[in-house]
Amino acid sequence: MSGLPMVVPAPGLPEKVTIYEVGARDGLQNEKALIPTEVKAEFVRRLVAAGLPVVEATSFVHPKWVPQLADAADLMELLGDSGKDLPVLVPNQRGLDRALELGLRHIAVFGSATETFAAKNLNSTLDDQFAMFAPTVERALAAGVDVRAYVSMCFGDPWEGAVPIEQVVTVGQRLLDLGATQLSLGDTIGVGTAGHVTALVEAFGAAGVGVDRLALHFHDTYGQALSNVQAGLRAGITTYDASAGGLGGCPYAVSATGNLATEDLVWLLDGLGIEHGVDLPSLVATSTWMAEHLGRPSPSAVVRALG
Amino acid sequence: MSGLPMVVPAPGLPEKVTIYEVGARDGLQNEKALIPTEVKAEFVRRLVAAGLPVVEATSFVHPKWVPQLADAADLMELLGDSGKDLPVLVPNQRGLDRALELGLRHIAVFGSATETFAAKNLNSTLDDQFAMFAPTVERALAAGVDVRAYVSMCFGDPWEGAVPIEQVVTVGQRLLDLGATQLSLGDTIGVGTAGHVTALVEAFGAAGVGVDRLALHFHDTYGQALSNVQAGLRAGITTYDASAGGLGGCPYAVSATGNLATEDLVWLLDGLGIEHGVDLPSLVATSTWMAEHLGRPSPSAVVRALG
Repeated sequence: MSGLPMVVPAPGLPEKVTIYEVGARDGLQNEKALIPTEVKAEFVRRLVAAGLPVVEATSFVHPKWVPQLADAADLMELLGDSGKDLPVLVPNQRGLDRALELGLRHIAVFGSATETFAAKNLNSTLDDQFAMFAPTVERALAAGVDVRAYVSMCFGDPWEGAVPIEQVVTVGQRLLDLGATQLSLGDTIGVGTAGHVTALVEAFGAAGVGVDRLALHFHDTYGQALSNVQAGLRAGITTYDASAGGLGGCPYAVSATGNLATEDLVWLLDGLGIEHGVDLPSLVATSTWMAEHLGRPSPSAVVRALG
Repeated sequence: MSGLPMVVPAPGLPEKVTIYEVGARDGLQNEKALIPTEVKAEFVRRLVAAGLPVVEATSFVHPKWVPQLADAADLMELLGDSGKDLPVLVPNQRGLDRALELGLRHIAVFGSATETFAAKNLNSTLDDQFAMFAPTVERALAAGVDVRAYVSMCFGDPWEGAVPIEQVVTVGQRLLDLGATQLSLGDTIGVGTAGHVTALVEAFGAAGVGVDRLALHFHDTYGQALSNVQAGLRAGITTYDASAGGLGGCPYAVSATGNLATEDLVWLLDGLGIEHGVDLPSLVATSTWMAEHLGRPSPSAVVRALG
């Protein structure tokens, strides 16, 4: 079907966006299958070759918590110089040591917008997490390493329900105050809707945090991810996290809490005439290849339609 | 998770929308399984009980083409008086005869926005389809029966690619000229994106067809359905077709060309604080029950998350 989607721009949207690809990290850490390191390296190389401008490669979290990414250092060694500009998740000082030893230049830390998730995921409190991140961020910045900060549970929390917008803004501001260059506002359980996205971005704006420092990270648990991207675009956000092939969500699972699929995002951006630099056929081929390694179809609608 | 989605209205959207439920017709006609007539009747009753204001019940199309709905007359007899206000699809004069005999008061006809689909689906041409519909619509109106007109392939066509917006407007206007009270603009292959939706609604407006005469009918083939609803809401459209549980799309199929799931639409509307009258838990229970009859999980994200 040539000429599809038909390109019909909508007024007032950004001309260009940056897709921050999280499939190799956020995607694979939520898949049951253990993927060989060589295959992960090939996956990352193929994502870069498909034109994705930022490809988060892995996480230096303790293997006890995320066995899927226990090979983080091996993967980065395999990638060699070509991996040095790829961001990696770094949960603590020890993770930073490994990243610095490998000569990496971009890290991400992972904070919580809610008390309960801070306790469960970080073994901290909402307040104490900043003191926990501070030395890691400080040392990274001193070494010339750029720091992104994820904020999880920005739209809702499985234990606390709705999360007050002011609370998210406060958490985000404290992470920026530590020195993070970009916040990725995550709808970890996928409950947010379009008006909520707009209100959150506007609340950050009112607090002096412009759209250039914000990224949006949506999960498709309730089918809202792409609608939420549209709200983000209308609010002027130009960076979106997405996962190739929707990695991280199982199409068979009762609660498929997967990431927004990069291909579905690309289809929307293509239709709107918004520049992104990704070659869709290459990306679909890559996700189809990875789905074979995982032994199940991709949850991405576009991959299933075109793959 | 109480209090979710958080209700955050977006300015300028309608306060209330009408969900036009197509699961029993458009959904079941695209499912492989043959559902017993008693089960269909129970399905329709449960959809009405869940608060759906319009439930299209079946189609009087020839059983040779759609064996899944060969029991249309039996179903409507089973529903009795409670079915008389439910719309049914009527492809031709013979179908209308059956609807009139049963005392039904709402029918829908099914047109094409493209030459190729008119040939393949209606065995007609783009131009000749109007002459084909004219006597059916005329007799229906004379009998006091209300007529909705579906227009398929409004955003793209598998053979012709992108469909010119002016062509869709022309087809729609001719169907309204015949006497249809509402047009349902269908993205039959799910390729449309947000800016395209806006442009199509605006083109109808420029041609004198207001938002009160338009409904939008999206398929989720490329994951765009709910994002397209958001564009429709922003353009002022207040009627959306949707299919309970996403019936009509198989979560396992390579090309899952299903309808927008009613539950996913309800989640968006709930988040935006837009009134719709549907009880989500009842609807999810109904779709879960129907998925058991079909022997596979629902493709609706909300049904999978809550069911």
